[in-house]
Amino acid sequence: MAIPALLAFIYGESDAFNAFYITIAATLFISLIILFFFRDVKENYMSTRDGFLFVTLSWVFASLIGALPFYLSGKIPAFTDAFFETISGFSTTGASILTDIESLPRSLLFWRSLTHWLGGMGIVVLTVAVLPLLGIGGLQLIKAEAPGPTVDKITPRIKETAKILWLIYAGFTVAQTILLMLGGMDLFDSLTHTFGTLATGGFSTKNTSVTHFNSAYIDGVITFFMVMAGINFTLHFRLLTGRYEYLIRDTEFKSYLFIFFAATILMTHNLYGNFYGSLGESLRYASFQAAAILTTTGFASADFEQWPYFSRIILFMLMFVGGCSGSTGGGIKVIRLVTLLKQGYTEMKYLLHPRALFSLWISGEPVKRNIISAISGFFFLYIFMLLLVSFVVASSGEDILTSFCTALATVGNIGPGFGKIGPAENYAFYPAYVKWFLSFAMLTGRLELYTVLIIFMPRFWKG
Amino acid sequence: MAIPALLAFIYGESDAFNAFYITIAATLFISLIILFFFRDVKENYMSTRDGFLFVTLSWVFASLIGALPFYLSGKIPAFTDAFFETISGFSTTGASILTDIESLPRSLLFWRSLTHWLGGMGIVVLTVAVLPLLGIGGLQLIKAEAPGPTVDKITPRIKETAKILWLIYAGFTVAQTILLMLGGMDLFDSLTHTFGTLATGGFSTKNTSVTHFNSAYIDGVITFFMVMAGINFTLHFRLLTGRYEYLIRDTEFKSYLFIFFAATILMTHNLYGNFYGSLGESLRYASFQAAAILTTTGFASADFEQWPYFSRIILFMLMFVGGCSGSTGGGIKVIRLVTLLKQGYTEMKYLLHPRALFSLWISGEPVKRNIISAISGFFFLYIFMLLLVSFVVASSGEDILTSFCTALATVGNIGPGFGKIGPAENYAFYPAYVKWFLSFAMLTGRLELYTVLIIFMPRFWKG
Repeated sequence: MAIPALLAFIYGESDAFNAFYITIAATLFISLIILFFFRDVKENYMSTRDGFLFVTLSWVFASLIGALPFYLSGKIPAFTDAFFETISGFSTTGASILTDIESLPRSLLFWRSLTHWLGGMGIVVLTVAVLPLLGIGGLQLIKAEAPGPTVDKITPRIKETAKILWLIYAGFTVAQTILLMLGGMDLFDSLTHTFGTLATGGFSTKNTSVTHFNSAYIDGVITFFMVMAGINFTLHFRLLTGRYEYLIRDTEFKSYLFIFFAATILMTHNLYGNFYGSLGESLRYASFQAAAILTTTGFASADFEQWPYFSRIILFMLMFVGGCSGSTGGGIKVIRLVTLLKQGYTEMKYLLHPRALFSLWISGEPVKRNIISAISGFFFLYIFMLLLVSFVVASSGEDILTSFCTALATVGNIGPGFGKIGPAENYAFYPAYVKWFLSFAMLTGRLELYTVLIIFMPRFWKG
Repeated sequence: MAIPALLAFIYGESDAFNAFYITIAATLFISLIILFFFRDVKENYMSTRDGFLFVTLSWVFASLIGALPFYLSGKIPAFTDAFFETISGFSTTGASILTDIESLPRSLLFWRSLTHWLGGMGIVVLTVAVLPLLGIGGLQLIKAEAPGPTVDKITPRIKETAKILWLIYAGFTVAQTILLMLGGMDLFDSLTHTFGTLATGGFSTKNTSVTHFNSAYIDGVITFFMVMAGINFTLHFRLLTGRYEYLIRDTEFKSYLFIFFAATILMTHNLYGNFYGSLGESLRYASFQAAAILTTTGFASADFEQWPYFSRIILFMLMFVGGCSGSTGGGIKVIRLVTLLKQGYTEMKYLLHPRALFSLWISGEPVKRNIISAISGFFFLYIFMLLLVSFVVASSGEDILTSFCTALATVGNIGPGFGKIGPAENYAFYPAYVKWFLSFAMLTGRLELYTVLIIFMPRFWKG
């Protein structure tokens, strides 16, 4: 928060500066008290159970504190809205309650985009280094690419892994910022949009999102980095160190690219002549929007709710997919869907040969049955969550399409959807209880469901 | 077909009579040829593989032949439409391409409803006696209620099982027909609506479906029998023989009733005051529509597309559920959803205790892991099918809600949905290729996906 506070000072935004100042002071004060009382607690003393609680509470508290600058500055008068906006930022959802984004002080807009950047990196470290240890929903598969037991793992220790991932992330940030500036964007816009891209978040500093810049070059740069951000970050590391063979073998990576290109081609074909006059324009908008929805970023370079229905149903289908595991993308994740598709096929093979034994292969390795079970359980809970969120949203009087797409867009950490939460709209109109429930949905989706839901089990609190 | 042919003769519907006459003659002729050529084939000589092909082809040929009276009489001029209407009947979907139902000759309307009745019984015998032997998608669970190896199974032989199920079905048919006639309906309407109810089909002989009769008594009778038809028929048998303990122990039965009552109560609460003036009216329409959608019948006693959104989202959620296994209902089926919910919960228990061993219990019996796998695979393929059908429907230019609900209503064998296929609308407007694909979707949904999809595996045709 020191950086946006400094910005507030430079820009002379006194309300925002005071809000940052108070938040920083209060947070430091509380932190010191906590540190003082727990100074004797041994490091590393943490059970699996503590792990779940620690991860979930970290995100909740970060969002509570992160909401204070918006609230205290009076720029977002209702705390519900301030919290919603912040958890939407940290969870890299990008769903906004702001009706006039550009009216906010620049320091607050910077902080808003920074929550994306921090949340995005947080989630990569979490899914690559922490959640597989906790055994969450088949994420063990991320490590399955390593051929030997330790040799090729990025590095077994969480701290080291985190450091390498941060470096890659920082590298991408610098690269994208420079490329955007070369396209005529100023440093502020370049940085904030880079944050929104690499975190697959989707907050823009403009009311009309990326449409505002109206530049094929900028659309192209953002499309490229959205696609990059949706790739497993351990693959980026391997690519940097010249080990290309992993890319070729990685089932999830190949499936992800296949989905992206298939969606782009189908939408380009549909848009060309029906909506845009030139093939180039059709390709530009189709590829941007395919990447924005598939990776769960949620930027808009066009109002895709005006597109022909065929293109819309493809975007609707992409809302079920999401990025790769170990990326900043949300959603169900490509690897889970590929595993389940192979599992469905394997079940059919068993019908023909009931006494045979079939293995399911991902990235050249057989997948254990308990991992398939974990993924199946995850998929069911995901669909269940979608219907539950739809139910709560509809209770406030919204139609089926809006309710269901709101569920898809929040649980999947996408942001915009269809119905009343389209790319040209926002979440401001929802009543407070829906906003709180959607905040819960965004967090639950972001933390791979299990991490949050497990805390509601009575068994969790026993023993 | 002899019965509707006789009706056509009595009513003096010459076009229809000729069509039935020709169809019966042609079918008999072809059957005799087939019988002659295969007279030396030994009985019971059928592999699992033959079983899948036999089941699927039975339904396809029944629909091809069943469509002839509509087509040859000229009352449904396009063969695509005639086939769609017939497979919608046999699959107990109840999706219609007729824009003016009442203009059809009564003998054809009778045949149309009779396809429901035949299809409904066919599916009960299939799911209770045949598909579990083929190992389809967890349906082995139907038999799990039997405590001993043979003592309490209805009876091990398919023919004997089928006979008992037919008797129960016939008993329900007589009972409902009489009860409807007591409510002032004539024999023709009573019989046809009984066929539509017990098969959970939904074809009515009236343009406005059950709304036409505008009677609380008739609504009540149909609601009761829809709920009955959605229950596993082996439970009906056990109930008839006084073994009530099964009902109390049956997880699926209890969950099914819970869902029905919960949906009814929530919708009654929502409708009362908001849409209907009296509590009685709200309860009448809510319970009817909850039963109609949950059991996948699809009758309408009100235009529920005019209801408040909260009631609509509940109906939308019920579209994902379906009846009990071994009933005439379609959809995912209650037992699968209960198993998956328990499976999701079990996965969370494993996260807390990775080295423990947890069993999943249904109706007082532990469920084997391979059955859970089969159900997980089924669920994923079901959602996959929904998106695939949505995609094909949207390619004809339909909106997302219409496309997705068309998928839910056809794969789930429901009939009406939301969007352009609401209770007051029909499927006439779809182009021919969509109608053929939806015919495929109805059949695939009806035969528990695997039975049809397996035929498209290259492996199926090898060796």
